[in-house]
Formats: sequence, structure tokens, C-alpha cells
Amino acid sequence: MAKEFYQPLSGNEMPRFAGPATMMRLPAKESAEGLDACFVGVPFDIGTSNRSGTRHGPRQIRAESCMLRPYNMATRAAPFDSLSVADIGDVPINTFNLKDSIRIIEEHYDAIVEAGCAPLTMGGDHTITLPILRALEKKHGPMGMVHVDAHADVNDIMFGETVTHGTPFRRAVEEGLVHGPSVAQIGLRATGYTAEDFDWPRSQGFRVVQAEEFWYKSLAPLMDEIRGQTGDRPMYISFDVDGPDPPFAPGTGSPEIGGLTLIQALEIIRGCRGLNMVGCDLVEVSPPYDPFGNTALVAANLLFEMLCVLPGVEYRS
Amino acid sequence: MAKEFYQPLSGNEMPRFAGPATMMRLPAKESAEGLDACFVGVPFDIGTSNRSGTRHGPRQIRAESCMLRPYNMATRAAPFDSLSVADIGDVPINTFNLKDSIRIIEEHYDAIVEAGCAPLTMGGDHTITLPILRALEKKHGPMGMVHVDAHADVNDIMFGETVTHGTPFRRAVEEGLVHGPSVAQIGLRATGYTAEDFDWPRSQGFRVVQAEEFWYKSLAPLMDEIRGQTGDRPMYISFDVDGPDPPFAPGTGSPEIGGLTLIQALEIIRGCRGLNMVGCDLVEVSPPYDPFGNTALVAANLLFEMLCVLPGVEYRS
Amino acid sequence: MAKEFYQPLSGNEMPRFAGPATMMRLPAKESAEGLDACFVGVPFDIGTSNRSGTRHGPRQIRAESCMLRPYNMATRAAPFDSLSVADIGDVPINTFNLKDSIRIIEEHYDAIVEAGCAPLTMGGDHTITLPILRALEKKHGPMGMVHVDAHADVNDIMFGETVTHGTPFRRAVEEGLVHGPSVAQIGLRATGYTAEDFDWPRSQGFRVVQAEEFWYKSLAPLMDEIRGQTGDRPMYISFDVDGPDPPFAPGTGSPEIGGLTLIQALEIIRGCRGLNMVGCDLVEVSPPYDPFGNTALVAANLLFEMLCVLPGVEYRS
Amino acid sequence: MAKEFYQPLSGNEMPRFAGPATMMRLPAKESAEGLDACFVGVPFDIGTSNRSGTRHGPRQIRAESCMLRPYNMATRAAPFDSLSVADIGDVPINTFNLKDSIRIIEEHYDAIVEAGCAPLTMGGDHTITLPILRALEKKHGPMGMVHVDAHADVNDIMFGETVTHGTPFRRAVEEGLVHGPSVAQIGLRATGYTAEDFDWPRSQGFRVVQAEEFWYKSLAPLMDEIRGQTGDRPMYISFDVDGPDPPFAPGTGSPEIGGLTLIQALEIIRGCRGLNMVGCDLVEVSPPYDPFGNTALVAANLLFEMLCVLPGVEYRS
Amino acid sequence: MAKEFYQPLSGNEMPRFAGPATMMRLPAKESAEGLDACFVGVPFDIGTSNRSGTRHGPRQIRAESCMLRPYNMATRAAPFDSLSVADIGDVPINTFNLKDSIRIIEEHYDAIVEAGCAPLTMGGDHTITLPILRALEKKHGPMGMVHVDAHADVNDIMFGETVTHGTPFRRAVEEGLVHGPSVAQIGLRATGYTAEDFDWPRSQGFRVVQAEEFWYKSLAPLMDEIRGQTGDRPMYISFDVDGPDPPFAPGTGSPEIGGLTLIQALEIIRGCRGLNMVGCDLVEVSPPYDPFGNTALVAANLLFEMLCVLPGVEYRS
Amino acid sequence: MAKEFYQPLSGNEMPRFAGPATMMRLPAKESAEGLDACFVGVPFDIGTSNRSGTRHGPRQIRAESCMLRPYNMATRAAPFDSLSVADIGDVPINTFNLKDSIRIIEEHYDAIVEAGCAPLTMGGDHTITLPILRALEKKHGPMGMVHVDAHADVNDIMFGETVTHGTPFRRAVEEGLVHGPSVAQIGLRATGYTAEDFDWPRSQGFRVVQAEEFWYKSLAPLMDEIRGQTGDRPMYISFDVDGPDPPFAPGTGSPEIGGLTLIQALEIIRGCRGLNMVGCDLVEVSPPYDPFGNTALVAANLLFEMLCVLPGVEYRS
Repeated sequence: MAKEFYQPLSGNEMPRFAGPATMMRLPAKESAEGLDACFVGVPFDIGTSNRSGTRHGPRQIRAESCMLRPYNMATRAAPFDSLSVADIGDVPINTFNLKDSIRIIEEHYDAIVEAGCAPLTMGGDHTITLPILRALEKKHGPMGMVHVDAHADVNDIMFGETVTHGTPFRRAVEEGLVHGPSVAQIGLRATGYTAEDFDWPRSQGFRVVQAEEFWYKSLAPLMDEIRGQTGDRPMYISFDVDGPDPPFAPGTGSPEIGGLTLIQALEIIRGCRGLNMVGCDLVEVSPPYDPFGNTALVAANLLFEMLCVLPGVEYRS
Repeated sequence: MAKEFYQPLSGNEMPRFAGPATMMRLPAKESAEGLDACFVGVPFDIGTSNRSGTRHGPRQIRAESCMLRPYNMATRAAPFDSLSVADIGDVPINTFNLKDSIRIIEEHYDAIVEAGCAPLTMGGDHTITLPILRALEKKHGPMGMVHVDAHADVNDIMFGETVTHGTPFRRAVEEGLVHGPSVAQIGLRATGYTAEDFDWPRSQGFRVVQAEEFWYKSLAPLMDEIRGQTGDRPMYISFDVDGPDPPFAPGTGSPEIGGLTLIQALEIIRGCRGLNMVGCDLVEVSPPYDPFGNTALVAANLLFEMLCVLPGVEYRS
Repeated sequence: MAKEFYQPLSGNEMPRFAGPATMMRLPAKESAEGLDACFVGVPFDIGTSNRSGTRHGPRQIRAESCMLRPYNMATRAAPFDSLSVADIGDVPINTFNLKDSIRIIEEHYDAIVEAGCAPLTMGGDHTITLPILRALEKKHGPMGMVHVDAHADVNDIMFGETVTHGTPFRRAVEEGLVHGPSVAQIGLRATGYTAEDFDWPRSQGFRVVQAEEFWYKSLAPLMDEIRGQTGDRPMYISFDVDGPDPPFAPGTGSPEIGGLTLIQALEIIRGCRGLNMVGCDLVEVSPPYDPFGNTALVAANLLFEMLCVLPGVEYRS
Repeated sequence: MAKEFYQPLSGNEMPRFAGPATMMRLPAKESAEGLDACFVGVPFDIGTSNRSGTRHGPRQIRAESCMLRPYNMATRAAPFDSLSVADIGDVPINTFNLKDSIRIIEEHYDAIVEAGCAPLTMGGDHTITLPILRALEKKHGPMGMVHVDAHADVNDIMFGETVTHGTPFRRAVEEGLVHGPSVAQIGLRATGYTAEDFDWPRSQGFRVVQAEEFWYKSLAPLMDEIRGQTGDRPMYISFDVDGPDPPFAPGTGSPEIGGLTLIQALEIIRGCRGLNMVGCDLVEVSPPYDPFGNTALVAANLLFEMLCVLPGVEYRS
Repeated sequence: MAKEFYQPLSGNEMPRFAGPATMMRLPAKESAEGLDACFVGVPFDIGTSNRSGTRHGPRQIRAESCMLRPYNMATRAAPFDSLSVADIGDVPINTFNLKDSIRIIEEHYDAIVEAGCAPLTMGGDHTITLPILRALEKKHGPMGMVHVDAHADVNDIMFGETVTHGTPFRRAVEEGLVHGPSVAQIGLRATGYTAEDFDWPRSQGFRVVQAEEFWYKSLAPLMDEIRGQTGDRPMYISFDVDGPDPPFAPGTGSPEIGGLTLIQALEIIRGCRGLNMVGCDLVEVSPPYDPFGNTALVAANLLFEMLCVLPGVEYRS
Repeated sequence: MAKEFYQPLSGNEMPRFAGPATMMRLPAKESAEGLDACFVGVPFDIGTSNRSGTRHGPRQIRAESCMLRPYNMATRAAPFDSLSVADIGDVPINTFNLKDSIRIIEEHYDAIVEAGCAPLTMGGDHTITLPILRALEKKHGPMGMVHVDAHADVNDIMFGETVTHGTPFRRAVEEGLVHGPSVAQIGLRATGYTAEDFDWPRSQGFRVVQAEEFWYKSLAPLMDEIRGQTGDRPMYISFDVDGPDPPFAPGTGSPEIGGLTLIQALEIIRGCRGLNMVGCDLVEVSPPYDPFGNTALVAANLLFEMLCVLPGVEYRS
């Protein structure tokens, strides 16, 4: 079967405020079969410790993606020219049971990975990255990671639980899902209980980039460095929308001031071009705290930029 | 081809806050072929004289329909047992050109009517009822109408224009689309320039029911009377969401105080059971003025109630 | 000088969402000279005990009045045919000094009263009714009053102060501004410290109508009774927007559940037709708590209805 | 130890917009010891099937209770004259684990019940009523119940789970926590899968009062009847804020149109006076969907009315 | 007739939250006669391709201008000392007919230009710049332009139409209204269909400054350069409020991330001092998407800064 | 009595969205006795010239402080290890009387100062800094000050009044409460009546830092300089939340564009480490204009940073 290249529905065929509510107005598909990359939603928020609402993230990100056209004016990436991309809908999580949901998510991503498709995930809270990494690791082995966040998310336990939105990367290390020296955590900051929150990841070889380190500065040099170090290792982007400073993305559950600008966020993603990216997520968009969708707009744009740096994307000259 | 009976996606298959953003979580279809009834969006707001935003109505009505289950607990209607119903998406109107949009809408509904399908329209401003009636009249001849609204919408011209959201029923009379003595306008009120606004429709044989007439009272007797008078004549429901009192449906462009309760709105629609209904619309939902979707929730529920009174719907005992 | 009859700017001359932000799109005048009635704003909220914000009330009421056309479809009142009405702007209160503001307001209304003009006031918190009554009493003597409110506003002192938004009618009695047996307080309810809050006004001859007394019932009979009792005595309407149940008018500072419907509010005002009305106010609209203007919309409509019951208004047949 | 009668902090000691953010500005206590009744929060929302956010319910209900004064002007109840009442804070639920939270809630209420204190619960989603009933049943045996809701909440399982916000009353029957013939469910309506949703409770002896049964009517006669039938049996009020029509209480997760008015809600609670009430809850307030607190205001008022009908409350003459 | 110098109404004469809702609290005038510069609103949004609502822009900009005092603390400009400036109200566009509105706008600006007055326009969507340029060109010939925007707005046709908010500068070039080499487009970015969107304006001699070019950098040097190149040529500022990054101005219809800061916006306008400025506009403020007016506040301030760089403004030492 | 060191309630004891609504979830205390530092609210907004609402500031700042953990990840400050800190509630101001409130505030702070406790004030509008300085001066003599603001707040009179939120620092100079050469005003900008607004403070020896001076630049060097100049002199921080650019802190009454970033705000506070700080305030947070609490979140974080720079705070290595 010849690969099909789908295009976002044009604004000259259907007004941008109308038509199907899929990501980027792409076709809706039942599965990842035959796709190079897929947008997939994980409407899960029961791993959240403060404000909830990320269960509605995928829907609002799709809604706010309606302005996105297929060509990246800044980088000249034309992802739909060379990749087959569609929206495969949401994972049917069990919203009453955290553990069962983790199982459902992992199985859902097993199928995506088996189809040879790179998942671009619309979260959902950060708990979901754990089962996604589990599925990806089965095929790709321990991955490097570009992790943007206000928090390290390496707690051991929270309120007695081992799997929450504050623990995924502790578990990922323990389970061998990531390769510590290929992990960069960018944007960490704010308050904690002890220095341990940032020292433990450092002890695992993570590059911990506190927000203060790059105030007023371009992150392009940092990304150059990361590209130099990770080589061909399979890489994953996990982007928590609380990485940017709250005024730039207020619709999230655990905002912390002093973070990234949207420009730095764009530099991080664009700086991943050339990495062997096997999957990406954008998590923690909580629509009830941003009813006009400004945070989801940021998320939709960053997801498009992630698509633009997947291996095999063509850049027009 | 055997008729297919579609069911809304169950909450036990996919959480209600997730899954496809279609009306009632029904399947999305490309056209009305093979359907008994269809939900269809008309994302049009350039006929609006005061606040705009109804272009986003169809999308928000669909979003707020996610709680709707297939069975009507009050009336025992089970519409999906006997009718084939799906969501056929939006009409690709030309948002820069009112007249061209009117033409596009009429042609789009011509195809629905030819398919033998009853359209349940999600507006959009009230201008759209004119091209819908034009398409329906070609098949059904002059229709009776249950028109719920704060305004009579029978202006001759507005700012020099003959086709706007304030003129559709003057045009409908002139073009012979409706049968005056079979038309009831319910909920009219507020301010105007002269008594003419309500006297002209009366002079055409319309039953004009000013809101004050039914304050504190059930509308069931009125609906009994209407059913008695209209017999088998093809009928249409045009429900402007500004018919209800603004606190009950604030997300609209021209709110007028002193209107219907939601209970009266339900009575009107439920009271249409037994009429020879050939189409229905719910117009003037303007999401920007109600970001949490309360008005769209009302609209989604009323559209389901309209579906429940279409000819051929089975009522369980 | 011949009296000039002003008309609201028509929607066919300037779109309703544009043009001057005056009440009902009437001309702006510098003073009440030559007018039969005037709309006047008192942007005052420093007498408020709970949530503030009514300083913005006049501006938002004017903004939401843009849909009002000159003719009352329900009552057939055409106030601009026989009265000269304009918007005379706001009273320049001293927002840092309650007592000085009270003085400023009284002096401002002295001039309105001297011009022979009936003031229709857009508040502002309820404190402002005291200086307004003081100015009116100089000309008209002790007045009767239709007072709609959730609270009796007859506290003796609050936090040691004698003039606040909770005390105006105690002061009005003490100063002889109102004639007790001609005062009706409608909609009173909720919680208090003792029964005294309602017993004291009763002891002054007030008719105290607790909200519960008229649940589910038309207020028309009550208004008939009031009209029968007050005869030709000069009358004043003081309408606190917290009289209606909070869902009907959420933008106010001290909401109490179990109140009037908007229909009852309309019945009260329309029921004042025939009284010797010398002034009216609509107070306690607090825009910050209702950013889309639903409460101000109610206020604008009720103020128009007040205008329609002023002595001398013509009713078309 | 002599019983202490606490009073809400007066508005003359501290402005109503300031001071401690406890329910009704009552003292904060560590436990229920020595109290006749207590306000207690259960900040739990992970049993919710649609929109979440009720975890913030207790905090917003407390905030909106700031206007409540100690005396009920309508019923003349003066609960603080004869009962010792305080706010004992929130239950420290485990927000990552539904089952563990159910255990924590039950244990927390065991202690309240042992202290001889009647709990007035601020939810939280409706799942929490199950562990509360479990704790109360140990002391009081099977209870009667006044259950106000849009939904019967008697599902057997949801998405494979037996304990969610849609199942508590099925479980309560199975576990013998309630006495079917002493249970009334008021306000049920909307859509479902089959008639079973309302037929099953009827088969257990529940009085199921669909919303339509009382449109336009006072609920006082129904409450008279309920009082006549339940005698001295221990009774519980479970009030889901989606019982009222959504415009009256929009801040909730599963709104359904056509429900109760606030007046009917007040009639239900006031109509419980004389019952042997052993506990009450007000659940499903979701602040993110009502940022200005209108729904929480309703909840705070209804909780005060519940306090007013507890056994032993004094009514002033 | 001696020129009159009007001053904004002082906060010591009328509180800032009250008084006339004109731009900067300046006098309202019927026409531009006798004025050096005027603020004028164009409440037009039917040329918009995505979210509408800019019809309300002029009103909200005026409301948010209430804090503006007459003297620029940063630049020492005192525009009201040497220029006669007032608010001449809104253009009475025909909101049902795009083409007719374009005609009305052009005629309205013909009169302003004939009066020798420089228009400072409050939009309205970007379509309106076309008829404004047409009117100005009749007097001034082809103009240079400082165009701030996320989009180039040089589409040839959109949905078959030649005049929309995405086409004005293609038309302006074709009609000879602008002088390409004197045009700078600043802030362009985001997604498109092809590189053509930015290459075409470059081919016309425009200076296209993509947002990325000036990330982290002052725009003062760019403005120095522009001033050096344009000499005495008549110049126009067209400022689309989506030029700034969406968090800085969320109330607009087509937001794109990665844009200007407000500081850069200020630098652009202040950097126009010394140019031969003949008119300015600030477009695309859509109040429904920013109910508290933050975007309109930005717009009001930028319009004041535009006034401060008009020829003839005095700067205090 | 041994000093008690209080810790914020941990997220593992009580979910962060629940529990006591005190600042940082610290214990509530009746007075400042025994404390080294205290958080105290001043719910006062009647000194405000434009939008009100800061009366609700303390409550929302406390609510948004729930995420704050005890350790500063950036600076390694651990304030609760070495200082005894609690929340002592609100000052019971008289909201109807500005002058009386000023007296109440001063007396309240007299007691705090006498207890040897450093007050960290949650405002309230900027008027409150005057009585706070008066109380502090009695013990500490004329203080230096780091004053962050968009406005100099050195008006002589406003609308005839000498004490308002625009005059505190004129009064502070006149009364000898501050030592001019030790005062820095940072972030000043926008519009005024004359250059006097900034020239007068300069004439008193203040360092006036206009916002433009530090656009794009770190404020760390400025803070180094300030630390070098003020030596051991008692210092006070007065931080008006309108110092930051409005997009970063929209919930305030008098926003002015072109201000500080949150990063600069953090640099200012962190740069105060080593100063002899005797008190701090964070004023002008107006919750009604930011219902989701983004501005209060900024305020809560900055107040924690202020605590971290009090003398005696331990920094972990």
C-alpha cells in the first residue's frame, strides 16, 4: 500500500473556526497503522496533586490548533510533504482508577510503536509519560530525553503512592527507560523540600538546567550542546506546559513563576532538529484555568514544532 | 443497503470528556445519504446586528453534547432505535460574503433534502433559517413553523439590507416558504420601534405569543392547540436561544429580559411530538459570551429533544 | 424655548455595538436643564460592606443599554414621544471620602431637582439613595417608596458608621425623607442577626414583603394594592439589583439566594404606572463580578421600564 | 466541660471580605469533640465521570459563606443559640487513589460519629456519600434519605468500577446503609441508557420524584408527605448541586437542564425540619466552572439551611 | 477661528472610572474639522477569517484609555500642548455587507483627510486599513509604512474574495497606495502554506522583519535604520495587535506564538518620532476574548504613543 | 519560652488544594508575639483611584500560596529553619472610613513592631504603606526603601485628599519616615501630568529607576549598588504588583504597560539579601480582575522570596 500524505484541511475549503475538531484539521484515523507520526490524546488527570482539569487538554489543544497551516515559516519545515500524519483520537483511560489507566495507556502505545509510528501526545497530566516511555523502551531501549518542566518530577513517593504526576522520571530511571547522561531537564525552579529534588537527577547523570541559568539568554547554545552529546541515541521530548513562565501558559495545575519565555520554548524544540526523535509529549494543559484557550494555543504550536523536528521531515530551501 | 442505526459512543467505552467532538458522540459522516436525520452545523455570524460569535456555535454545542445518553428519561423516546442519525459536519460558508454564504447554505441543504434526511441544524445566526427554508420548501411546500425567539425577525430591511438575522421571516412569507396560519412565534418581547414588529406577523396569520402571555404558566396547553391546528402540514422548528430569559442562556448576541424558562423551552419541543416535522434549527449560540458552555449545553439538550419528536421515533413503554 | 424630544440613536444610523456609550444611545447633556427626565450615573462604591465594584456600574449599564429601542412592545409605552430625556453623565464623587461624596451627590441632585427633572439614577452602591432622597425631599416632601432589595438596609450603625450602604432607610426615616406607611420593601430575605431587621421597618409603617411571601406568584396584585394606598403622594423607586435571585443578576456585592425572578422585577416596575413617581434608582450593579454584562443588561432594561412609568409618558393604543 | 456555643465572626468585628476563611466564619477546630454539629470538607473529585474540579469545592464554599449571618430571617431558626458548631477542616484524602481515599473518609467520619457530632459535609464529588453513610450506619442503622440530584446515582458499575460518583446509592442499598422506603430522590431527569436508571430505585422502595413532576409547583406538600412517612427514623440529606437547573448552579460537572429552582431547593431543606436528621452533605460544586462563586454561594446557603433543620435547633418566636 | 487645544479630563475633576467614555477622556466631536489629529473608531469585523469580535474594539479601547494622562513620562512628549486632538466617534459601517462598508469607510476618511486631520484609528479588523490608505493616498500619494503584525496580510484571495483582513497589503501594492521600499513589516512569523507569504512582499521591496530576527533584542536600531531610509516620505503606522506575543495581547482573532514583547512594541512606535506620519491604526483588538480589557489597555497605550510621534508634537525639556 | 519553628503543612499530610487557607499553609496565630516574622493581611481598597478590589487581595494570595514548599530551590534559603513565622490574619479595617482605617492599621502594626516581629504585609492598596511605615519608624527611625511600582506615588493631593494610594511617599518624606538617599523607586513609567512626578522624588534624594532604563537587562547590578549604598540602615520593601508589566500581573487597579518582567521582580527581591530588612509589603493585588489567581500567585511567590531575605534566614549549603 502506497503511503498516503495527509494535509490539514485548508482555510479556503472550510473556515478555520469550523470543520472537524481534529489536531491541525488532519484526518481522523482509527489507528496508527500506515502512519509515520500520529497525534494522540491522553485525557487523564487523576495523577495530579494540585489543580486538575488536564482531562480536557486534548480537546482544547485540538480546538486551538485550527489556525495552524502546514508550512513552518521560520524553519521552512514542510512535515506533511514527507511524513504520513493523522490524528488517531484519544486513549480510553479509566478515569476512576489510576493503575488501570496506566496499563491501558501502555497497551495503547504498544500498538502505536508496533505500527512504526512516532506518537505526538497531547496530555493529560505528567503521569502519562511513564507508560508511554515503557512502550517506547520495548522497541528503542533506554532513551535520551529533553524534559522541559518547572519541576524535576523525580519524587520517590507522594502521599504513599509511587505513580503520580510528580514521580515519572524516578520510575523511568529505576526501570531503565531512560539513559541518564542523555537526559536534560530544562526550566526547573521554585520551591521544594530539600536540594535533593535537583541533586538526585544530577546523581543519575541528568543535565539539570535551572531556569535561572538562562534568564535573558537564548537556549540555542544549550541545544547545540545537547545535540552534540546525544548522537544517534533514540530521544524523547517531554514538555510540561508549566516549563514556561505562568503568564505565558496560565492554564496548568502547578504554576511556578520565573520560568521560560515562549521564545525559549520554541528554541528548545527547534533545537531538537537532527536528534533521533522517537516520540514527544506536551502535558499539563488544564483548560478550566484558561477558558479562552491561550495555553492550549501554545501547546498546539509546540506540538507542530515537535512534528517539524521528527526524523525524515523535509525542509524546503 | 440495510439502514444502519448508529448509537452515541458510550461512556463505558470512552470517557465523556474525551473521544470525537461530534454531536452526541455520533459517527461523523460525509453526507446525509442513507440517514433519516442528521446534525449539521452552520458556522455563520455575519448577519448579526449586535454581538457576533455564533460562528463558534456548532463547535461548542457539539462539545457540550458529550453528556447526552441515547434515551430520554422523561418522554421515553429512544430515537436511535428507529432512526439512522449521524453528524454530517459543517457547511463551508464564505465568511467574507453574506450573499454567497446564503447560496452555499441553500445548496448544501438541497442535497440533504434530496437524500430524504431531516436536518437538525446547529447555528449560526438566525439569517441561516432563510436558505434552509428555501431548500425544504422545494420538497415540502409552504411549511408551518414553531418559532421560538425574543424577536419576530420580520424586519423589512436593516441598514439597507434585505437579508440579515432580523429579516428571515419577512422574506419567508414573501417567498411563500411558510404558511402563515400554521406559524406560531413564541416568546416575543422587549423593545422595538413600533407595534408593527408584532402586528405585521399577526396580519400574516401568525400566532404571536408574547412572553408576558405565559409568565408563570405551562406552555403545554398552547402546544396542544398548535398540534390541533396544524394537522399533517410539514412543520419546522426554528429555536433562537434568545427565546429563553438571558440568565438561562446568556451566550447570545441580542439578549432581552423577561423570556421563557428552560422548562417552557422543553415543553415547547416536547409538545411538538406528533407534528409532521421536516427539520429543526437551534440558532444564535455565541460561545465567546459564555466561555463555560452553559448556553451550548441548553442548545445541545434542546436539539436532542427535537430529534426525539421527529416522525418515526420510537417511544419505549 | 420649545422642548426638544430626543430619540435613541437608531440601529440603522449606527450599528448597535458602536456609537456613543450613553444610556440608550441618547444625547449627552451637560445638565438637567430643559429635561423632563435624565439618566445620571453615581459611580460610588465606598459604602459597600462586602464586594466592591459598583463604581463601574454606570459605565456597564450604559454599554448594555445599546440594544434598547424607544418603544415598549409589552406596555406600548413610548416615553420619548412626550418626555424630553437625555443622559447627563456622572456625578464627580470623591472616591477617597465617603462623607464628602454624600455632600457632592446631594448638591448635584439639588440642581437636577431645581431643573424640574426626574432623575433615573444608575448606581453605585445603595448609600447613594440617601443624598438623592435628601435632595428630592426638599421639593417633594416625605415620599412613598417602592424599595426592591434582598436587605432592608435599615441598620443603625455598621462598624461604627451611620452612613453606609446598609443604613440609608434608617436615616431616611429619621430625617423625615420618607412617609413610612407609603413605603413597600419587596424581596427581603436571607440571614441576619435578629428579627429586628424586618421588625423595625414594620414598626415604621413600612409594608415589608419577604421574598417567600410571593414565591411562584405574580406581584401584580401587590402592585395594585400599593397603587391603591399611595394615591398622589410623590413616590420613589429604589431598586437594588440584589432583589432578584442571584442567578438572574450575579454581578452584585451581597447576593442572597431565594429572591425575585426577572418577571417579578418587571411586574413591580410596570405596576408603578400611575404613581406620582419623582425619581428612581437602580443600584448595586458590580461589573467585575459579571464581565459579560448580564446583570447590567437587566439593570438597563429595568431603568427603561422605570422611564416608561414616569408621569406624562404616552402609551400608544 | 460545659458546652461552648460559637458564633460566626460578626461583620462589625472584621469586614466580611476578610478574616478567617472558615465556613460561616466559625472557629476552626481540630476535631468534632464537644461539638453538636460540624462543617467538614471532603476535597475529592477522582470519582467524577465528566468535568472534575470538586476538589476545590470546600474552599470556595467557605469563601462564599462570608455573608452568612447567624439568624435565619425566613424560618426564625437561630442554630448557634442551642448547638455547638464549628468548622473542623478537611479530610486528608489521597488524591491519587480512589479506594484508599474511601477508606480515609470512612475512618474520618467514624471519629466524627463517635464524638456524637452531626456532620455537615462540603464536597467533593458524590462518591464521598458512600463512606459517610458507612460511618453513620454503624451508629444509626439503615437511614432514610432525602436525595436531591439530577441523576439517580444507582449505576451498578461504570467503566468496570463499582465505586464512583455514579454508583453510591446502589452500593448503599446492597450494604444495607439506607432503608429504601424512607428514601426520596428528587429532581431526577435528563438522558440515560434505559428506564432502569429510575426503575431500579423504585424497585427498592425509593420514592423517585422526576423533575417534571413538580415543574411550576411548590415542593412543600411533598416534604409534608415525606415527614409523615419517615417518622423518627434517622435521616440523611444528600444534596447534589446539579439537582437545581444549571443556570442556578452552573459550577458542577454533569449539568442537566430542566431541574429545580433555588426556591424548590430551599423548600426541600426547610421541609426537613422535624426529621431526625443525623447528617447532611452538599456535593459536586466545581469552582473552576464558576470562577465568581455563584454556585458555591448557593451551596453555602443550603448548608446553613441544613444546619437550621438539625434536631435541637431553637426557633425564635 | 483660533485652534482649540483640548485636554483629557483630569482625574481630579472626575474619577478615572467615570465620566465620558471617549478616548483618553477627550471631548467628543462630530467631525475632524479644526483638529490636527483625531481618534476614530471603525467597529468592523466581517473581514475576519478566524475569531470575530473586533467590532467591539473601539469601545473597549476607549474604556481602557481612562488611566492615560496627557504627558509621556518616558519621552517627555506633551501632545496636547501643540496639537488639537479630539475623539470623533465611530464610522457607521454596514455590518451586513463588507463591500458597502469599505465604501463607507473610505468616504468617512476622505472627509477627515480633507479637514487636514491625521486619523488615529481604533479597529476593527485589518481589512479597514485598505480604505483608510485609499483615502490618505489621494492627498499624500504612495506612502511608506511601518506595519507590525504576525502575518504579512498579502494574500491574493481568501475563499474567493479579494478584500478581507488577510489581503489589504496585496491590494495596497496593486493600487499604488504604498511605496514598497518604504514599507517595513515587523513581527511576521508562524505557519503558512508556502514561503511565498513573505517572499512576495520582499519582491515588492518591503523590508520583512521576521519575529525571530529580533528575539532578545532591542528594535531601536531597526527603527533608526527605517528613519534613515524613508526621509520625508509620508508614512503610516498599521499596528495589528497580534504582532505582540499572545500572552501580551490575548484578545485578538488570529494569535501566533513567538512574537514581540510590549517593550519592542513601544520601541517601534517611539522609534517613529521624526517620520512624516500622516495616519496610524491599531487593529484586531477583540474584546470577547479578553473580558478584563488587558489587550485593549495595550492598544490604548500604543495609540497614545502614536499620537506622541505625530509631526508637530512638542517635547518638554 | 523556647521559640517554635513552624513549617508549612506538607502536601503529604493534606492535599495542596485543601486544608487551612493560611499563607503558605502556616499555622494561624492570634498575634505576632513570639514570632520573628509574620504574614499579615490588610484588606483595604478605599484609597484606590481607579479599579477597586484589593480588599480581596489577602484572601487570594493565601489561596494561591498553597503550592509553596519551605525551601527555595534557587537561593537555597530555608527560612523556617531559623525563623519563627506564622500567619496572624487580617487587620480589621473600617471599610467605610479611610481615616479611621489608617489609624487602625497603624495601631495594629504598633503591636507587631513591639513584639519584635517583622511584618510581611499582603495588601490592600498602596495607601496602607503609610501607616505601616509610621509604626515601623517609631522603632527603627527613618528607613531606606526598595519601592517597586509603575508610579512614584508622591502626589501631594488627589481630589482634595492628602492620604490616598497615590500619595504615601510624599507623606512619608514629609513625616520623616524614610531616608531619601536610601530609597530606590524601580519600574516607574507611563503617563503623568508633568515631569514633576519623577523629579520631586529625585529632589528628595531618591534613586528613581524608570522602567526603560533596564529594558532587556538584569537588575542584579542595580541591587548590588543599592546594597553597597544603604549599609546597615533599616530597610523596607514596598512592592506594588503593578511594577511588573500588566501581562505578568493583570489583576491590579492601575496597570501601565512597559514594566518589569517577573524575572526582574525576582532579581530585585533576591538582591535584597544582606540588607537590614525590617518589613515588606506586596500591595495592589485585585482578584476580581484575575479570577484564576495568576496575579496572586506572583504575589505569593514574591512574599516568600521576601521572607527568604529577612535578616537571620539560614541558607543551606
